[in-house]
Amino acid sequence: MKYPGGIKRIAENLEIPTNYGNRGMELEKELNDTNRYYLDNNIAFIYKKPTPIKITKTEYKNNGKIIKEAFFDSPSTTDYNGLYNGKYIDFEAKETTSKTSFPLANIHKHQITHIRNINNNSGICFLIVRFTTLNETYLLPSYSFLKYIDNNQKKSIPRKYFQENGYIIHDKYIPRIDYLEIVNKVYGGANLGNN
Amino acid sequence: MKYPGGIKRIAENLEIPTNYGNRGMELEKELNDTNRYYLDNNIAFIYKKPTPIKITKTEYKNNGKIIKEAFFDSPSTTDYNGLYNGKYIDFEAKETTSKTSFPLANIHKHQITHIRNINNNSGICFLIVRFTTLNETYLLPSYSFLKYIDNNQKKSIPRKYFQENGYIIHDKYIPRIDYLEIVNKVYGGANLGNN
Repeated sequence: MKYPGGIKRIAENLEIPTNYGNRGMELEKELNDTNRYYLDNNIAFIYKKPTPIKITKTEYKNNGKIIKEAFFDSPSTTDYNGLYNGKYIDFEAKETTSKTSFPLANIHKHQITHIRNINNNSGICFLIVRFTTLNETYLLPSYSFLKYIDNNQKKSIPRKYFQENGYIIHDKYIPRIDYLEIVNKVYGGANLGNN
Repeated sequence: MKYPGGIKRIAENLEIPTNYGNRGMELEKELNDTNRYYLDNNIAFIYKKPTPIKITKTEYKNNGKIIKEAFFDSPSTTDYNGLYNGKYIDFEAKETTSKTSFPLANIHKHQITHIRNINNNSGICFLIVRFTTLNETYLLPSYSFLKYIDNNQKKSIPRKYFQENGYIIHDKYIPRIDYLEIVNKVYGGANLGNN
């Protein structure tokens, strides 16, 4: 699937904007490859959303209005969404170099609202967090994520919380990050009630 | 729910880019109000996607990279998506002043691929098309839309096809365009098989 050109270029060529400081580009590439595999094999259709942009100056040129100044905006949704067997699926993917905890600074207020809305409407929603120095990748369901931030004033989620409430996603050859294997386990049948 | 600032401004203040020529801003406003109603009443969470933008020039300024030139890109997805009772829902909304047919020029090739991918993965997907001069608003399921374009080389879909394969969405006071009423009828239970 084709992503809007500009957005693709941000992801591929440009420096990561400040508000994306914690987003893992390597993880992102692996997820895009995995989603491509899911699509090509008729398993699921999950796609990356465009990076939000705030337009501050426009101008007429040739046959249309063009943007003369704009900024990378802080995201109001998560990075990925799509569908799996007709069910809505949505997640945010982050990397951290910390060995002990995942800093919450990179999950924006509006993203938390977004995650809450999905959770309230029985959607499959989670975080994929990679502790790069430990080479551990976790899937943390939205209800566990929300439970933590609603009951803690802390600025980060300890790795221990991921170990106890999340699920390790083991590396594979193809697909690289088979997170739907975990989704089947966590959200299959009765567990959907947890949402 | 907050939409990225820049995008909101495009929708509210700026001239509609050429590739959005057929998008109805009035219909869009009514749909946004309806989606707001669905969210506030815990019925569904359906949101508008950012307008894709193609970045052609960037520059450093203060503490980050800013965009010095960009263009409105042609969309590779539909306008709206979200979830309803955990199910993935996705649609494109258009207005036409024609009394006889809906011109296909405004549904882009990549949007058709997107609709096909959703359809193949059992998603709830449709077009909402308003014939403004007749004040008729139709919901046309994706499978009927795809059936038409796969079997016709025509540049537009006749109104008659909407009458025979679509569903009228009657105006209401609140919510303004209660399209989920039709979704319940069309996709409820067995009919999901049509996808």
